[in-house]
Amino acid sequence: MAEVAGGHQFPVVKIENGRAPGPFLIVCEHASNTFPAAFGSLGLAAEAQHAHIAWDPGALGVARRLARNLDAPLVRACVSRLIYDLNRPPASPGAITARSEDYVVPGNQGLGAAERRRRTEAVYLPFHDALHGEIAGRLAAGPAPVLVTVHSFTPIWFGTPRSVEFGVIHDADPALAQAVLTEAKAHTTLDCRLNEPYSAADEVTHTLRLHATPYGLANVMLEIRNDLIADPAAETAMADLLSPVLSAALASVSGSKTERAVV
Amino acid sequence: MAEVAGGHQFPVVKIENGRAPGPFLIVCEHASNTFPAAFGSLGLAAEAQHAHIAWDPGALGVARRLARNLDAPLVRACVSRLIYDLNRPPASPGAITARSEDYVVPGNQGLGAAERRRRTEAVYLPFHDALHGEIAGRLAAGPAPVLVTVHSFTPIWFGTPRSVEFGVIHDADPALAQAVLTEAKAHTTLDCRLNEPYSAADEVTHTLRLHATPYGLANVMLEIRNDLIADPAAETAMADLLSPVLSAALASVSGSKTERAVV
Repeated sequence: MAEVAGGHQFPVVKIENGRAPGPFLIVCEHASNTFPAAFGSLGLAAEAQHAHIAWDPGALGVARRLARNLDAPLVRACVSRLIYDLNRPPASPGAITARSEDYVVPGNQGLGAAERRRRTEAVYLPFHDALHGEIAGRLAAGPAPVLVTVHSFTPIWFGTPRSVEFGVIHDADPALAQAVLTEAKAHTTLDCRLNEPYSAADEVTHTLRLHATPYGLANVMLEIRNDLIADPAAETAMADLLSPVLSAALASVSGSKTERAVV
Repeated sequence: MAEVAGGHQFPVVKIENGRAPGPFLIVCEHASNTFPAAFGSLGLAAEAQHAHIAWDPGALGVARRLARNLDAPLVRACVSRLIYDLNRPPASPGAITARSEDYVVPGNQGLGAAERRRRTEAVYLPFHDALHGEIAGRLAAGPAPVLVTVHSFTPIWFGTPRSVEFGVIHDADPALAQAVLTEAKAHTTLDCRLNEPYSAADEVTHTLRLHATPYGLANVMLEIRNDLIADPAAETAMADLLSPVLSAALASVSGSKTERAVV
């Protein structure tokens, strides 16, 4: 629970399946479209609070089912990305966005340093410290976790339809992302692309940079088009399709590492 | 205060000059040779608890005076590196070392996963979460801090004297380290070396990797030979020598950035 000025308390992060022993650690930064009373609705109508600008629709359902299928912990947000976008560093204009696609966010206009610091301390830090705690605990006890972040994207962006269905994004270390792409192309009929609809150049890989790269963890960011995960049955089906893809990709990466070590 | 099983509480980290407005953020991971009761003496004699294997003698005095001279916050440890070496990741054998130079550490022999996790959660996480909080708060409010870690090294290592007096060490981004070296060579008579007596290849740059690289912060690790900072007067003199070196180095790095932006 985070506390902000005025004594309001609200949950920022939840860890589900905390001690599950599988190799993956699943992260869902944009799981929620909750606007805690401490911050209010930011002047947004109900429709905007439910739109993709406020969260990644379907991502939590997929992430939960992946965590269940893969016996993995899930670290997930409980606050809308419009309060603070947990996949952006505190100095980024996108961390507390004033405008998203064709929506203006009234409560995020002209924020001063004090309010940016307040949101960073109330939302960003508790989330990333909780995730850091999961990672550090697993590193200490072994084996190192494999980081998978789960996102969704809108099928239409500024009026243009997107044909990509499953985007696989990497930051500094492309190995696992390339393996996921190979397995997804081989074993699904999804339109799969590497670094689409976004890439690290769009600053969408902050969580990977902050948590995976410093520890050398294998890592990948998944982006699923949200019309394919528009209800619970579709979320479950997508996660059931992608779970063996992730397992096979990890096996292929681990296998090639072992081979290199032997050679 | 960190709490470990049994209800013992002890301070792991202190932040001094917390809201000082200067551009630097000073870090001293090996500031202390304190062995909290929750962990005991690890079976070490008093002599070993005061030797350089337990801490970086002189580093805290230098770091404090640098923080004062540069109007900077100081984040510093309150626990011996033999309980947990805060400049090592949790999976590293060096995080809780079983042996250091010619000392064996009885209390660190054959530790299991549970004890490694306990030390990580009791020492590593509170320290690095506190440092992360300082950095994130400054990033949110602007401007971004410049990270400087302060260490000392022993003049004799396995019987061999070291001639280097001031080591300047970098990780992924060498810019500030190279500028510090240039300024130190120009304005001091110290024997200054880049990436000596250690380098990133020795895994001594964990704090820089964890906190500076993900945010693109300018950063440098300083290593001072501990016979040159063996009493408070010498610590003060060394910090007074190095403060203008750091300021000039930062100005030169910022200047070249501005030039590039203008061109």
